[in-house]
Amino acid sequence: MHAEVVSVGTEIMLGEITDTNAAFIAGALPQFGIDLLYVSQVGDNPGRMREVIGRAWKRSDYTFITGGLGPTEDDITREILAEVLGETLEVDAEQEQILRARMTRPGYSMPERNIKQAMLIPSARALANPRGTAPGWWVERGGKVAVLMPGPPAEMNRMWAQEVASELERRADSILVSRTLKTTGLGESTVDEMLSPLLKNSNPSVGIYHRADGVHARITAKAPTREQAWTLIRPLEVEARRILGPYVWGQDDESLSASVGGMLRDQRLTLALMESATGGALGSAITDIDGASDYFHGSLVTYATQAKIANGVPAEVPTVHGVISRETAEAMAKAAREHLRADLGLGITGIAGGMEVEGQPPGTMHIALYDGEEFVYSHSRYYQGREAAKRRAVLSALTLLRNYLMQRAGAELG
Amino acid sequence: MHAEVVSVGTEIMLGEITDTNAAFIAGALPQFGIDLLYVSQVGDNPGRMREVIGRAWKRSDYTFITGGLGPTEDDITREILAEVLGETLEVDAEQEQILRARMTRPGYSMPERNIKQAMLIPSARALANPRGTAPGWWVERGGKVAVLMPGPPAEMNRMWAQEVASELERRADSILVSRTLKTTGLGESTVDEMLSPLLKNSNPSVGIYHRADGVHARITAKAPTREQAWTLIRPLEVEARRILGPYVWGQDDESLSASVGGMLRDQRLTLALMESATGGALGSAITDIDGASDYFHGSLVTYATQAKIANGVPAEVPTVHGVISRETAEAMAKAAREHLRADLGLGITGIAGGMEVEGQPPGTMHIALYDGEEFVYSHSRYYQGREAAKRRAVLSALTLLRNYLMQRAGAELG
Repeated sequence: MHAEVVSVGTEIMLGEITDTNAAFIAGALPQFGIDLLYVSQVGDNPGRMREVIGRAWKRSDYTFITGGLGPTEDDITREILAEVLGETLEVDAEQEQILRARMTRPGYSMPERNIKQAMLIPSARALANPRGTAPGWWVERGGKVAVLMPGPPAEMNRMWAQEVASELERRADSILVSRTLKTTGLGESTVDEMLSPLLKNSNPSVGIYHRADGVHARITAKAPTREQAWTLIRPLEVEARRILGPYVWGQDDESLSASVGGMLRDQRLTLALMESATGGALGSAITDIDGASDYFHGSLVTYATQAKIANGVPAEVPTVHGVISRETAEAMAKAAREHLRADLGLGITGIAGGMEVEGQPPGTMHIALYDGEEFVYSHSRYYQGREAAKRRAVLSALTLLRNYLMQRAGAELG
Repeated sequence: MHAEVVSVGTEIMLGEITDTNAAFIAGALPQFGIDLLYVSQVGDNPGRMREVIGRAWKRSDYTFITGGLGPTEDDITREILAEVLGETLEVDAEQEQILRARMTRPGYSMPERNIKQAMLIPSARALANPRGTAPGWWVERGGKVAVLMPGPPAEMNRMWAQEVASELERRADSILVSRTLKTTGLGESTVDEMLSPLLKNSNPSVGIYHRADGVHARITAKAPTREQAWTLIRPLEVEARRILGPYVWGQDDESLSASVGGMLRDQRLTLALMESATGGALGSAITDIDGASDYFHGSLVTYATQAKIANGVPAEVPTVHGVISRETAEAMAKAAREHLRADLGLGITGIAGGMEVEGQPPGTMHIALYDGEEFVYSHSRYYQGREAAKRRAVLSALTLLRNYLMQRAGAELG
């Protein structure tokens, strides 16, 4: 099955918004065995829309169109698709009722121009849009399908999940399922070599990808049903986990801070931070996870050296060793642990800006962890601008934490 | 002049990466008076690439192509464009020399397959790529132009800035320039009404846009040169600034944290925070700005109530008034100011998670600022998930700070 995506909107052509809908749909199609061959973006222009949508309908089994379903005169996607199919738009009584109920509030009645959002053509059935006023369309004729969805990503994603995906799954000859194992501490070529016995399979297949949070191994299987695909994946996943062992820190959509949070909770440990160069970004990443208050006591963002000292870093440490040093990171970890009364303290000091400090280059980060008995330390150097340096330091700190917690869990087991 | 963008890469068609290059180019073209009519994405497939690139070359004055310039067999954009133009690829001696110099290191010589990156066709001249191995192409024939650029955004953006933009500006009949004024504290329709006397102009024109950090007013002018366009913009900008007065907090790419940082520096004031629900995100936003250490002392991320008390919040305040309360936010502001010895202290307490706490709904945020004499307070309620709630609270806190600093500057002047 061949598919095409068309995203409609003059804002896209002016670069005012990035079309993320196309990438969303592209990422969702492979699991249904549908090959996406073309993606196009076009402005709210009747002639060009007719051309692009007409070509898509002609050459593709599935045409997914987003945008241009609003109530204004510019929003003409329904009209153009009706024209391409040679069908007539008519107000659908049921859709009109839903729309009026939705838009009428005390003292406010629906503007008449909105009525076009309740229109259908004979080949279309409506797709519910609980997050907006414009229903989508599922159009089917002569073995071809066109799906119209609203442009706002929150509306489109919800409609996809609730209406479109299940319909595509029902029709699919085969389903593609994948499981991603996320690793840290290994290079791409090392993971590739470790998994080489598994890489020869074509179904399930294994792919290795380098990502910002480490190297990912993705196991993908194709089968007539979702259950059968999982049956193919499972033994390979077990084998890959056995080979990669403690280097796997998470799977699929899991984030490093969720993984660390889960381990802290399992081991009944609490955490406190003292952050300098990251300015609070590590605390923010940790508190992006629901329930972080179970294990996270807080972070002392001691940007000024004076603030470090006020929070328990002995004044002589930065004086003797420098602010950007292993010793200061360790003193910060110790002070955070004591001051915020946590089991583990972690300190980060480094350079997020583009200038050398104390003879050390931009991007240098010293990270130390203290558990009351011993220190664990790592340092890194990465510079592609201030925000990237902070982001990378956050990943390094989470990796240090994770490796420590892994080892501790292993020690407790052993 | 009509343009078309073609982004090449199978990863795009699989949804593994979002094509941000197309949006970047789309946003850059209007200033040169070039209308972007079509954008397409296509995988690394010879037949479909030939079709899409062939059509673009035929119907557009400018065709901008990104991706597929790497050294592997999949990277065939050069070959396809050569085919479309009926020209022959040949190794260019100068490009070969640059490439070999770049890729040869002690103990490592250039793999021979890389040589194709040094190839040109007669109608093409090379565009330097200081961030990668693949040079771009500027192709010109029969009044039409095709520009080939590498897919990685860092390489593409640099090549655009250093090679492509100046060439487009040189050829442009007219240049479009715009100035964006960013406001806070006013609704979209209010800004629209206030600026209505200016909205009738067509050159310069004024557009009003609702964005996450407030309402933006964009003044755009078209003229034969950049200088002439600015001459058209300036009087309107002066007038818009007069009308909007203190509601304007920044312009163009400026961020709210940069604006607040500049005001703190100008007024020689220092800032300390105590953050709870934002988990460090406010400190992180403030330290995204170069030189923040001039005015930012730090943030006490007191996620646990016990940590608030350990950092100077009187234990009875959260007990009597609740942790999620104006009184606790004020006590946090006061404690941050004292503990980190800053001129201003700011406290945030609230609910980032999706559950009610102390009878208050998700997204509730209490924000207080203390300058040693009086408190300023704001509260907000916004919930579209945890990360959005944190982001919105950061904007609210920066807005509170900005309004305080504005008033203070006014009082000093007055």
